[in-house]
Amino acid sequence: MPAPPRKRRRPDVSVLRVGHRPGRDPRLTTHLALAARALGASRLFLHPPDPELAERIAAVARRWGGAFEVRGVSSWKPVLDDYRGGVVHLTMYGEPLTKVLPRIRHAPRLLVVVGGAKVPPALYGAADCNVAVGSQPHSEVAALAVLLDRLLGGAASSRFRGAEQRIVPQRRGKRVLAVRKRKAG
Amino acid sequence: MPAPPRKRRRPDVSVLRVGHRPGRDPRLTTHLALAARALGASRLFLHPPDPELAERIAAVARRWGGAFEVRGVSSWKPVLDDYRGGVVHLTMYGEPLTKVLPRIRHAPRLLVVVGGAKVPPALYGAADCNVAVGSQPHSEVAALAVLLDRLLGGAASSRFRGAEQRIVPQRRGKRVLAVRKRKAG
Repeated sequence: MPAPPRKRRRPDVSVLRVGHRPGRDPRLTTHLALAARALGASRLFLHPPDPELAERIAAVARRWGGAFEVRGVSSWKPVLDDYRGGVVHLTMYGEPLTKVLPRIRHAPRLLVVVGGAKVPPALYGAADCNVAVGSQPHSEVAALAVLLDRLLGGAASSRFRGAEQRIVPQRRGKRVLAVRKRKAG
Repeated sequence: MPAPPRKRRRPDVSVLRVGHRPGRDPRLTTHLALAARALGASRLFLHPPDPELAERIAAVARRWGGAFEVRGVSSWKPVLDDYRGGVVHLTMYGEPLTKVLPRIRHAPRLLVVVGGAKVPPALYGAADCNVAVGSQPHSEVAALAVLLDRLLGGAASSRFRGAEQRIVPQRRGKRVLAVRKRKAG
């Protein structure tokens, strides 16, 4: 079914990364967080917590704008249990994204769960749906990016509020502008 | 402009990863390679070469099918110079993907160049176009995934030839089938 032509409201998307290994996965989880922010998610719940990584992403958000944040959680199950909205688990073993997308695109709130090296089996049952971006060995960063792009399409090109600087797209080379802040009060 | 309704031929896509750091980036570049394969690219040129990584990806292709391969290259410039097709450089500083997509989607062959930690400035001039998936700090894995999904959309769900096993999509849990091979001769 094609999407209705009128402008639709985008879901508020949170991402939950389960099984992060601080010290071993910092770069991968950093990529996951940056992709989540750039493609329109509102926050990343990170299990287990990694304050250093959270601070690095907070620094990006201060400079480049928006309200994206990383919140450490010591247990993943309560995040699912307390979440008021649909829970989508990304796994190569799940149903094809094209099949699931019509069911989730009009949800007001979605929690996208992304496993790490080892996925707790209970996750499959705890999620409302298990979704595969291609039934092939994959990258969770890539799978999340495709899901967010299809779900929130175009969010990637929107500007973020409160940025200190922004990129002016160029055919060649780099151009970054400092953004003048409005005075408070 | 919407794409024409008739089935279009997909470009043959190669990916060139510039500035891989063997020993430091193995997991990130592995994710890049897996995403490239799962989302329909034909090969990854890897600069500099990393035989261990190439063999890991070859093992995936043997088990899960298809002809995707990683080819090490000791110098990136000749790959661009010798390539017969359009060269697209992924960078957060480039033109928006939505603007560039109509120009590249009908190309028969495309080389997508993905920088690592440090991008040689000459790359911006050597590419036919510099493309941004969101003008925000990002993940090159995520940016490549979105580009490939928009360009080759649906490739992710296609089966790969010659696989030893394949996933049967499930609402819950995992199901993997061994694929019976046809006898040769």
